[in-house]
Amino acid sequence: MAVVRQLKLGAFMRPVSIHTGAWRYPGAWRDANFSFPRLKYLAGRLEAARFDAFFMADHLAVLNMSTEALRRSHTVTSFEPFTLLSALAAVTSRIGLVATASTSFEAPYHVARRFASLDHLSEGRAGWNIVTTSNPDAALNFGLEDHLDHDERYARAREFYDVVTGLWDSFADDAFPRDPESGTYVEPERMRALDHAGRFYRVRGPLNIARPVQGWPVIVQAGASEAGRQLAAETAEVVFAAPNGLFDGRELYADIKARMARLGRDPDHLKILPGAFVVVGDTESEAREKRARLDSLVHYENAIGSLSIALGHDARGFDPDGPLPEIPESNASKSGRQKTIDLARRENLTVRQLAQRLGGYGGLSFVGTPATIADAMQEWLETGGSDGFNVMFPYLPGGLDDFVDKVVPELQRRGIFRRDYEGRTLRDHLGLPRPANRFFPSGA
Amino acid sequence: MAVVRQLKLGAFMRPVSIHTGAWRYPGAWRDANFSFPRLKYLAGRLEAARFDAFFMADHLAVLNMSTEALRRSHTVTSFEPFTLLSALAAVTSRIGLVATASTSFEAPYHVARRFASLDHLSEGRAGWNIVTTSNPDAALNFGLEDHLDHDERYARAREFYDVVTGLWDSFADDAFPRDPESGTYVEPERMRALDHAGRFYRVRGPLNIARPVQGWPVIVQAGASEAGRQLAAETAEVVFAAPNGLFDGRELYADIKARMARLGRDPDHLKILPGAFVVVGDTESEAREKRARLDSLVHYENAIGSLSIALGHDARGFDPDGPLPEIPESNASKSGRQKTIDLARRENLTVRQLAQRLGGYGGLSFVGTPATIADAMQEWLETGGSDGFNVMFPYLPGGLDDFVDKVVPELQRRGIFRRDYEGRTLRDHLGLPRPANRFFPSGA
Repeated sequence: MAVVRQLKLGAFMRPVSIHTGAWRYPGAWRDANFSFPRLKYLAGRLEAARFDAFFMADHLAVLNMSTEALRRSHTVTSFEPFTLLSALAAVTSRIGLVATASTSFEAPYHVARRFASLDHLSEGRAGWNIVTTSNPDAALNFGLEDHLDHDERYARAREFYDVVTGLWDSFADDAFPRDPESGTYVEPERMRALDHAGRFYRVRGPLNIARPVQGWPVIVQAGASEAGRQLAAETAEVVFAAPNGLFDGRELYADIKARMARLGRDPDHLKILPGAFVVVGDTESEAREKRARLDSLVHYENAIGSLSIALGHDARGFDPDGPLPEIPESNASKSGRQKTIDLARRENLTVRQLAQRLGGYGGLSFVGTPATIADAMQEWLETGGSDGFNVMFPYLPGGLDDFVDKVVPELQRRGIFRRDYEGRTLRDHLGLPRPANRFFPSGA
Repeated sequence: MAVVRQLKLGAFMRPVSIHTGAWRYPGAWRDANFSFPRLKYLAGRLEAARFDAFFMADHLAVLNMSTEALRRSHTVTSFEPFTLLSALAAVTSRIGLVATASTSFEAPYHVARRFASLDHLSEGRAGWNIVTTSNPDAALNFGLEDHLDHDERYARAREFYDVVTGLWDSFADDAFPRDPESGTYVEPERMRALDHAGRFYRVRGPLNIARPVQGWPVIVQAGASEAGRQLAAETAEVVFAAPNGLFDGRELYADIKARMARLGRDPDHLKILPGAFVVVGDTESEAREKRARLDSLVHYENAIGSLSIALGHDARGFDPDGPLPEIPESNASKSGRQKTIDLARRENLTVRQLAQRLGGYGGLSFVGTPATIADAMQEWLETGGSDGFNVMFPYLPGGLDDFVDKVVPELQRRGIFRRDYEGRTLRDHLGLPRPANRFFPSGA
């Protein structure tokens, strides 16, 4: 019997949606950024729909846009990921919980510890979205005047990953007999100090926490640059990709999986999940009207700010009705910058049109009926475009309810999405192996 | 009508008790260090008993004891405080949640953000236990070879506090109109960048999170040294003190409250809660037998390790059956070191006796019946010894159940402890004012 390939579905969450006009949409929860009951409802619905993971985006600064853009933005203030996901762990039982943590502004010991703790709290449902943080405004909140350049950030991220995963291996899985008779709580012989001394970090260890339930929390990455692809092929288990369309998606998919094979990794041990902004209507025209209404709520100041961030260059001086001028090199994420330039050239957009597209949401979108959305997702799945998607909802709770109530049953009917969880951990959901312990391979 | 002074009660928690023999006690939950269901039960019982706060201790290293002491210790591995308390926030509704965070190994922006997030998640129940981390082994997990000396740690802590509280004031309480008609989500004029540039930290701000529900989470400190007392008088709202008896307790209480008055602070705006290790029996002899049985479960290796930490000096070479020798100055917490020396001199203890006392639990203890324990607590409360206690339970869940089922009703019967919560936030429970916003005093 042939096994039908199954979609993996993450929910990419900012509390009040990624779309900058979302909070103004009729019926949207404007207070969700700081309302735990709202987030509890959303996570509960996603779990009932058998989503693989709740994926919490993050950033580390407010001042990365103009005053007028900030005035209209709901995306700069929200819960911090570890505190929110830990609270959600207590009120859910199966859905994965993926937190974003930056390798540029954190200490590896803290990061290793919090993810291990979340993995124990959730009984094996934690994932770490590794970001290098390209926003130079964030550096100013951490005492750094000069932000690291792109390659330096990735070199640091690679070493940071080595330290964190090494700390997770501090204890063998069977290191804690907790035998009251002999008085042995932990076997020090089944514990190892990492003694890491590298270019960026010196960390002795061991971690003061037992090995995570999953061995390691699931490793998630987003980078699509040359350095990002290589880091993903070496280390990632989920790639949160951002291709603009199926052609780009297939190229990225084939490239990362080929890099893995060259490194001796099983390509099935990494799931590529493009971000997909999904607007559901009962008819095609209803869906398009929803999108148009939503985009109409985006203020131009937000639009031009988003364009500036994407380019790593202040775009406010550009002629709004002219074509995008040549942009000098910068510290911005290289893949995001080139994608933005490509979009403008490909669709022959003015600066204003490009800015408005990005200011709402400029990436991959599926706007249609449950059937046409399922068609598109199935095509990506079956033609080497992806292993699933990180779904972005246009507004909350309506956009999420639409997806859960209408699209998920269609995917289940086609046999390409689970009707129930088969395992308990995020690794179980994603079909990922439990990593062996580098120090205690037989006890893993 | 005279208002009767009311005890404030915190629960000082390590998941499997602070006492190093606790996990071996009959019926003790040996797996509680990494079992969220256990912690959920304990927090729920404390909330039903109307405790002010669940107080989570912390440390940042494993290797601060010998191999043989480590083998017998349940205190070096457990959940990380922010993740645990956030999860508990989701399954409780009134009890305060106090997390320990170190000013020596964290970035102020992260600390400000996590406490603000926990305060929003819990709807105003967060507290920050500020510690400077005297354990030199912790430094090695953060790339630091030379640990900061005592005075330097306190100078850094003071500036850290200024930055964190300043970041909490980033937004006026009314900064978020979230008005869909005008499109104004946040008023940038009601937001302030901190622009801090001090001796230890450079932090621009603003924090990317709305002002906490409580204005600031409650500030908790433990230090009893000269620098610690002054820092507490300047900044603390709860002092987790560690006097050995009522005489010491009154001296500390009077001193810190007098320092506050000299600084122009209302002495009622700081609650002094000594840690109290409480063993409850239905008779005096039953209580003493419980304590003796518990202490008998402590291994000598743990005992001598605890003594070494308390002194900041390796005590393994001392003659176990001789008196405590003179100890040179060190980087250890000065107050803890002197207290240990005083205890040995006062009770004329051998090194072994001193070590065994400390290895179990060497601080203030109430061992008796519900009536005699309530007598002692009432005496402290009514004679200027304290404003309440941070209760330590000898083993879990039994020691906590005993306190909640037997001592709390006795305290309530005497009218010195609440029968129900009167407010919603930790500040409400403790009778502490909501701090004004330094940048937006009228909007606080």
